[in-house]
Amino acid sequence: MENEEFRRRAHETVDWMADYLEGVEDYPVRSQAGPGDVLNQLPPSPPEEGEPFDDIMTDLDSIIMPGITHWQHPSFFAYFPANNSPPSVLAEMIVSALSVQCMIWQTSPAATELEERVMEWLRDMLGLPKTFTGVLQDTASTATLCAIVSARERATDHAVNAKGMGVWGDLTAYCSTETHSSIEKGVKIAGLGRENLRKVPVDVDFAMVPGELEKAIQEDLDDGKRPVIAVATIGTTGSTAIDPLREIGEVCKKHGIWLHVDAAHAGTALLLPEYRWMVDGIVMADSFVMNPHKWMLSNLPCSAYFVRDPEALVRTFEIMPEYLRTSEAGVTNYRDWGIQLGRRFNALKLWFVIRSYGVEGLQAIVREHIRLARWIVERIEASEDFEVLAPVPVNLVCFRYHPAGVDDPDEMDRLNQELLEGLNSTGKLYLTHTRLGGVLTLRLVVGQTRVEQGHVERAWELIQRTARQL
Amino acid sequence: MENEEFRRRAHETVDWMADYLEGVEDYPVRSQAGPGDVLNQLPPSPPEEGEPFDDIMTDLDSIIMPGITHWQHPSFFAYFPANNSPPSVLAEMIVSALSVQCMIWQTSPAATELEERVMEWLRDMLGLPKTFTGVLQDTASTATLCAIVSARERATDHAVNAKGMGVWGDLTAYCSTETHSSIEKGVKIAGLGRENLRKVPVDVDFAMVPGELEKAIQEDLDDGKRPVIAVATIGTTGSTAIDPLREIGEVCKKHGIWLHVDAAHAGTALLLPEYRWMVDGIVMADSFVMNPHKWMLSNLPCSAYFVRDPEALVRTFEIMPEYLRTSEAGVTNYRDWGIQLGRRFNALKLWFVIRSYGVEGLQAIVREHIRLARWIVERIEASEDFEVLAPVPVNLVCFRYHPAGVDDPDEMDRLNQELLEGLNSTGKLYLTHTRLGGVLTLRLVVGQTRVEQGHVERAWELIQRTARQL
Repeated sequence: MENEEFRRRAHETVDWMADYLEGVEDYPVRSQAGPGDVLNQLPPSPPEEGEPFDDIMTDLDSIIMPGITHWQHPSFFAYFPANNSPPSVLAEMIVSALSVQCMIWQTSPAATELEERVMEWLRDMLGLPKTFTGVLQDTASTATLCAIVSARERATDHAVNAKGMGVWGDLTAYCSTETHSSIEKGVKIAGLGRENLRKVPVDVDFAMVPGELEKAIQEDLDDGKRPVIAVATIGTTGSTAIDPLREIGEVCKKHGIWLHVDAAHAGTALLLPEYRWMVDGIVMADSFVMNPHKWMLSNLPCSAYFVRDPEALVRTFEIMPEYLRTSEAGVTNYRDWGIQLGRRFNALKLWFVIRSYGVEGLQAIVREHIRLARWIVERIEASEDFEVLAPVPVNLVCFRYHPAGVDDPDEMDRLNQELLEGLNSTGKLYLTHTRLGGVLTLRLVVGQTRVEQGHVERAWELIQRTARQL
Repeated sequence: MENEEFRRRAHETVDWMADYLEGVEDYPVRSQAGPGDVLNQLPPSPPEEGEPFDDIMTDLDSIIMPGITHWQHPSFFAYFPANNSPPSVLAEMIVSALSVQCMIWQTSPAATELEERVMEWLRDMLGLPKTFTGVLQDTASTATLCAIVSARERATDHAVNAKGMGVWGDLTAYCSTETHSSIEKGVKIAGLGRENLRKVPVDVDFAMVPGELEKAIQEDLDDGKRPVIAVATIGTTGSTAIDPLREIGEVCKKHGIWLHVDAAHAGTALLLPEYRWMVDGIVMADSFVMNPHKWMLSNLPCSAYFVRDPEALVRTFEIMPEYLRTSEAGVTNYRDWGIQLGRRFNALKLWFVIRSYGVEGLQAIVREHIRLARWIVERIEASEDFEVLAPVPVNLVCFRYHPAGVDDPDEMDRLNQELLEGLNSTGKLYLTHTRLGGVLTLRLVVGQTRVEQGHVERAWELIQRTARQL
C-alpha cells in the first residue's frame, strides 16, 4: 500500500472510527456471540496473495464486530473500565504512525523526557509525595511484579538476583483476602510461592485488618521465615474496599517490609483532593500503582508506577549488553525500569489527555461518575427489594436483588445469577459479579468516559424490571 | 471533545500521519537532540484548564518531533527494526477506537478467536510444527520470562509456584555468551539467580557449541544442581548467529530440559522456505518466540509465542478469582497465558498485515531485504579497507573499517567508534554497534519496511566517505 492509498484509507478508517464511537450505543454492550461463532468464519489458511482493503473492512464489520464487547459503550458497567477518549485516540494514532521503540533515551529522547515530565504532572495531580518518581508500565500486573521483585532484592541485598532463591528459605508476602489476583500471580512468578503469601483477614467493610497483618508477620518471624512485602489495596476489585494505609504502613515500617500500594482503579479518584484521605500515610509506601487506562480516559496500556527509590528499581532490573550501550551521561534509560526491553510511546496519550481536559476537566468527569454511583446507591437504599452489599467509597456499587420472603442463601445466589445473565443478554448494559463474604454480588461501576445520568437511570429501571420478572 | 470535533481532528491527524510517513526521509534518522532539550521545554506543572487541540499539535511539532528517532525512516539500520506498515497502522487506529480489553473470551470473543486463528496462520507461514499453539505476548522479554517460569514449574512439578524456590536448591539455565540480555533478566526475575545461568561458549561464527552445553549441564548435575532450561537463539542480537538447534535439542532431550528458542528478529525469515534450515530440529523445542513487531511490518507490541504444551503454560499462570469467572465452557481465556491480566487487541494488526500483503507479498519484502544485505556484504568484501566480522545468514551485516597500516586493536576500536558517531550525527542514517570477540563492530540491519536499493547504496557511499575522512 503506497502513501497515497494509505492517506485515503486512513481517512476512511477515521470515518469508521468516528461512526463507531458516535453509534456505539446501537451495539449490544456485551457481545452476544457464542463460542466458535467468529472462529468458524475465519479461513484456516492465510491468503497467498494480498487481498483488497475493502474486503478486510467488510469482514471486520460482518465477522469481527459481532464478537466485540463494547468497552466504550456508556452502559458498560462491568469489571473496571478500560476507557479511551478522543484526545487519547488521537495520540494513539500518532503513536502508531511514529512507531518508535522507546527502550533507551537515544532511541527517542522525546519519549523518555516526555514520560519523565508527565509522570511528574501525574504525581502532583494525584497528591502523591514529591519524593516519588514515576515510570509507565503496561499493566498493574506488571507493576506489581516489579514491586515484588524489588522487595525481594532489597530484603536480600540483591542476593536472589545473583544466586537465586535456593539459599534463602522462605520469603513471605502479605495482602488481604480481597486483594487482586495479580499479587498471587506475581508472588508465583518471582519464586516466593503461593503458600508464602498470607491472605490477611478483612473487616466487615472488606478492608485489611492491620492487627491481623501484624499477627501474620509475627508468626512468620517466629517460624524463621523472612517477610519481604505487603500490598495494601486502595479500591479492591471486588468492592473497592480501602485498606487502612497508615496503619499498614506502620506495621511495614516496624518490620522493614516493602509496602506496595495497588490503586489501579480507584487511584484516579485521587485527582479530587477530597478523596486523598484514601492514601493517608502514602509517604510510607515504597511503591504505588494506578492505571490511567482504567478510569482516566487513556487507552490501554498505560499503568503509572511510582517508586520512592528509583535506584532500587533500576538496580533490580538493569542489564547492560554492549549493543545497548550509549555514551550520553545523566539520561534515563527506561529499559532498566521494568520487565520488558521493548517499549511503546505510551506517554504521548497521557500528555494529550491531561492537556486536553486540564486538571479541572478531569476532576469534573470523575466527580460526576462518583455522583452517578451515589445516585444508584440512593435508589437501591430506598428500594424494598434491593440491597447494597459493601461501602461505596468511589464509583463501584455492590448490590443484589433481595425480594421479600426469599432468605435461602442458595436461592438468593441463583436469583441474582439469573438476573445478571438476564440483564447482560439484553445487550443494553453490562454488569459483572463477585462474591463478598461468600454472597453472589452484582457489581456496577460508573466510570465509562461517555456515561451520563440517562444511562444510569435506564440501567436502574432495567435492573428493577428484569428482577421483578424473574 | 465531542464526536463531531473528534472526527474533524482525526482527519487532520491522518493528514499529519500521512505527511509524516511521506516525508520521513526529511528528518535526521537518529534524533539530534541533547539531554534535557525536550524536558526543558515542557512546563513543570499540568494545565488547570483544558488547552486547545491546535496548541498541543503545535508543541508536538516543535518540541516533541526534534526529539524523535525515526524508526520508520528507510535508512534506519540500527538495532533490530520496529516496523510499522500502512495496514498495521490502519488496524492500530481501529484498535484505539474500540479499546477493548481482551483478558478473557467474554470481554471480546472476536479478539480471542481472531488471535487463535492468526496464530495458526502464522505458525503455518513460518513452517513451525502443527503441534505448536500460539499466543501473543507484548515483547520477547515477556515471552522468554514465560518460558523460564514454565520450565521452572515443569521441572519441579509446580512446586515452586506452590512453595517457592526455597526448598529446591539451585535450578540452572543455559544460553550462549551471545544470547540476548532478556534471558539473564528473566532468570533473575524468576528467582533462579544470575550465577545459575551458564553462558555456554560459542564457535568462530558466534553460535553455541553443543558439546560445551552438554559439559556445562553435566558439571551442574555432578554438583547436585538441577538444570531446567536451555535457550537456543536463531539470530543473536549481536550478529544473528544461528545456534545449532537440532544438536542443542538432542542435549536437552537427553537431560529432560526445557528448550526455548529465541528467534525474535530472524524468525521472520522463516517465511521463506529456503531459510527453514535455521530451525531444523524445532520439533524438539518446548517454546519458540518471534516478533512480528520487528521485521514483519506489525506495530509494537506484537510478539508471537508458540508452545508445544499450552496446558503447561496455563497451569503455570492461571488464576481464578470470582470476579473473572464466567460460564462459557471450552473457550480460551488468554488471561492465563502470560504475565499480564490486561490485554490489548493485538491480533487485529496481524490479520490486517497478513491479509493485505498475503504470504507471497511478505515473502517478497523479506527476500528483498536479505538481497540488499548481501549487496552490502559484497561491497565490503570487495573493498580494501572494510571487513565483514561475522557470517550474514539473513539481514544483519557486522563489519568494521580497517584501513591498511592500522593494526592496533584499540586504535581500530577508536576509529570505528568515531566512524559510528560521525555517521549518526549526519542524521542521514542510523547504525549501532556491538562487540564480537571483544572487537568493536558496526551493525547494519536492512529490515525497514520502506528501505530500497537506493538507501543501501547511499548508506554504503556515506560509510566509505566518512571513514576515509577520519
